[in-house]
Amino acid sequence: MKNEVERSALMVDLYELTMAAGYFHHNYNPTVTFELFSRYLPENRNYLIVAGIEEAIEFIGNLSFSKDEIKYLKSLKVMKNVKPEFFEYLAKFSFSGNVYAVNEGEIIFANEPILQVQAPLIEAQILETYLLSVINLQTMIASKSSRIVNAANSDGKLRGVMEFGSRRAHGPEAGVYAARAAYIAGCVGTSNVLAGYKFGIPVYGTAAHSWTLAFDSELEAFKKYSEVFPDSSIYLIDTFDTLEGAKHATQTGFNFNGVRIDSGDLELQSKKVRKILDDNGFKNSKIILSGDLNEYKIDKLVKNKTPVDSFGVGTQLATSADAPSLPVVYKLVEVKKGNDRIFRAKTSPHKIMYPGRKQVFRVINNGRFEKDTVDLAEENKSVKGKKLLHQWMLNGKQVKDYPSLENIKTYVNENLKLLPRNLLDIYNKVEYKVEFSGRLNSLLKNIQRQHN
Amino acid sequence: MKNEVERSALMVDLYELTMAAGYFHHNYNPTVTFELFSRYLPENRNYLIVAGIEEAIEFIGNLSFSKDEIKYLKSLKVMKNVKPEFFEYLAKFSFSGNVYAVNEGEIIFANEPILQVQAPLIEAQILETYLLSVINLQTMIASKSSRIVNAANSDGKLRGVMEFGSRRAHGPEAGVYAARAAYIAGCVGTSNVLAGYKFGIPVYGTAAHSWTLAFDSELEAFKKYSEVFPDSSIYLIDTFDTLEGAKHATQTGFNFNGVRIDSGDLELQSKKVRKILDDNGFKNSKIILSGDLNEYKIDKLVKNKTPVDSFGVGTQLATSADAPSLPVVYKLVEVKKGNDRIFRAKTSPHKIMYPGRKQVFRVINNGRFEKDTVDLAEENKSVKGKKLLHQWMLNGKQVKDYPSLENIKTYVNENLKLLPRNLLDIYNKVEYKVEFSGRLNSLLKNIQRQHN
Repeated sequence: MKNEVERSALMVDLYELTMAAGYFHHNYNPTVTFELFSRYLPENRNYLIVAGIEEAIEFIGNLSFSKDEIKYLKSLKVMKNVKPEFFEYLAKFSFSGNVYAVNEGEIIFANEPILQVQAPLIEAQILETYLLSVINLQTMIASKSSRIVNAANSDGKLRGVMEFGSRRAHGPEAGVYAARAAYIAGCVGTSNVLAGYKFGIPVYGTAAHSWTLAFDSELEAFKKYSEVFPDSSIYLIDTFDTLEGAKHATQTGFNFNGVRIDSGDLELQSKKVRKILDDNGFKNSKIILSGDLNEYKIDKLVKNKTPVDSFGVGTQLATSADAPSLPVVYKLVEVKKGNDRIFRAKTSPHKIMYPGRKQVFRVINNGRFEKDTVDLAEENKSVKGKKLLHQWMLNGKQVKDYPSLENIKTYVNENLKLLPRNLLDIYNKVEYKVEFSGRLNSLLKNIQRQHN
Repeated sequence: MKNEVERSALMVDLYELTMAAGYFHHNYNPTVTFELFSRYLPENRNYLIVAGIEEAIEFIGNLSFSKDEIKYLKSLKVMKNVKPEFFEYLAKFSFSGNVYAVNEGEIIFANEPILQVQAPLIEAQILETYLLSVINLQTMIASKSSRIVNAANSDGKLRGVMEFGSRRAHGPEAGVYAARAAYIAGCVGTSNVLAGYKFGIPVYGTAAHSWTLAFDSELEAFKKYSEVFPDSSIYLIDTFDTLEGAKHATQTGFNFNGVRIDSGDLELQSKKVRKILDDNGFKNSKIILSGDLNEYKIDKLVKNKTPVDSFGVGTQLATSADAPSLPVVYKLVEVKKGNDRIFRAKTSPHKIMYPGRKQVFRVINNGRFEKDTVDLAEENKSVKGKKLLHQWMLNGKQVKDYPSLENIKTYVNENLKLLPRNLLDIYNKVEYKVEFSGRLNSLLKNIQRQHN
């Protein structure tokens, strides 16, 4: 199931292609390294869970321009002085470089490289827009989901979080990938059937208010549902009056799985509904809460001992509503000139970054992350720790297999156990220690001096 | 260029399909009407510009289930008691109903129907997730873009706004549709080449910091750019030092089109850069500003008489960052029973809605919208005004042509001239007068009475 909008080589900002044409014109195509990283963490994020690596590698490995796409590019006024050979080059384009990236599901922090492209300048340049787009979306959603899942289990009781946000995700494709990222990060599944079909993610669903409204009474609607789904009925009980709805649920003659409450004072109603269910002999029927939930509302519900078995979370998860983008960038950090490495970095005062292709070394002590050191990628005996960046592509060929989605999910879960506990605080900004090595600081100073 | 993720019939929440299976099981498939509307306007929005109608109609007209999709659905545990005939029904599915919607580009307000589906219940139900998804995304971006464009021209001077947000939009597809919505709503174009290719939207671009960093000096980088693009060079001048960058721009020997500043104090730097350009004989070279802009920053720049010719706006536009979703819903409002219309509405106290298929009547007086009246769709001589909802599909066939993107853009522009001026206020919430008719209020009271 190929997604042609997604995979089109034209999914770039125009300037990537004008720059490519410019480099081609000047026959200037040295091997360079670009790094993709998040400049800082949004206010309500203490860590990021990386997702989107598989989509990124797939795109790089399959990038090509169709005849129609090239014809369109030639027709643009801005391209009128560009030599025909450039378009012939695009027609034969295939990626020939190296790609390094962290594992999908890795926990990372501000300014740590997530993905690196080491390739001829033209090839590396035209990947920028797409790579930022997929890593931004999935990493943002995975990171938001992790907070929500943590809140749902903050008292040590396991409560599933189901991703219900497809209708408010930013379009159909964003809905599918949000479901994937949410699942990686700890959600038990999604309502999005296409995500189930495409990725094998468990799919969940109850019924909508329209089911109840389509019949002459709520009780009739519940009965009719259980006649078809006797083992998996979750009644949505807030169409008219939640407590009446709970009573109707107990009157269907079916041993229903649970009820969902989607509006009103969820804490108060859950407590009353639990009592109605228990008093009528439905102690095993579960309560599912939904309705514009986020990590704060869930944390409060859990802290106040609301009887709830699982949560359906939609809009705020699938749009990462409090931080609907990450400040991810894709920056040139070095250029190869003959046998020399020329280190590069922007030095405009508001946007400091370090030059050179890097590695992140993570020290884990007593079962917890202690600190990360970022250094040049080349071996340096004095820096200790687990290396986070791995080679995914060599000379245009993939050299590392994609882990299964289940393996990624397990990796996230294991990694989260190693995260310092204070970083799980959803209310306060807590900084994890990330050091940039002496070598990197010297290189940066050299570049700054050069430009003063 | 079909987009299979986008167009898949499985782009639904699971409950749409379990409800469909349930209705099928009970042989309960009356003609119903669902209405799609926004429950309220987000805090920083005084009006919405509807976009996404074409994508919605296309989806409805082409919806079908492939063999593999049906095989997957059959394999789901929840479907185990569903009769095989239901899957045969899906295999032959095609939409047979009526669709009514406003014009693409229409200005609408809270609770006014945007789109209505009048069809057999099963058909209408399974459209929900997709319709919400595309209308939410494009309407949200069009509405945000309109505020930004208004701010850019608030002193009466025309300044173009270019949509630059593909890298932070929620995935590649969202980037393309954000570009479309932004263009409809008044942006002059986009950086997204795929949006140019697919929709014919003008594409714009300058160069990135990486262009400057790839060469040995900024001056060399600028010269090299103009050698390839002599008629369309915009130099990005903030890689190292903006004022030095402006000086370098004047030293290339080329008559460059303009400069772009992407960081720092944009107002202060623009004023200094303008002087450098003017003093060196480049009075016609334009200044383009970018860097996390939104309507508030742009309004301040314009009010402070910053010399600026156009804006590139990315993240905050393409994610509608301050309101990254709209509270759009898709609700059952009536059911046909024999020759009777049974009016339906949810009455849970926090989410009031009106029953019945409706029409919006807009009164325009002295060149301005005066008020809207929402009434039942059926003719009522006592209600005056321009009808906003039109029939797009009849018995499954499209009966209204898509206007061209240029026509939609013109329609938006003409309509905005009729909008009361106080609704253009980007700082204050201003309510437009929308009345619900006596007939609708009676119907609602009847339903509320029934459930008390």
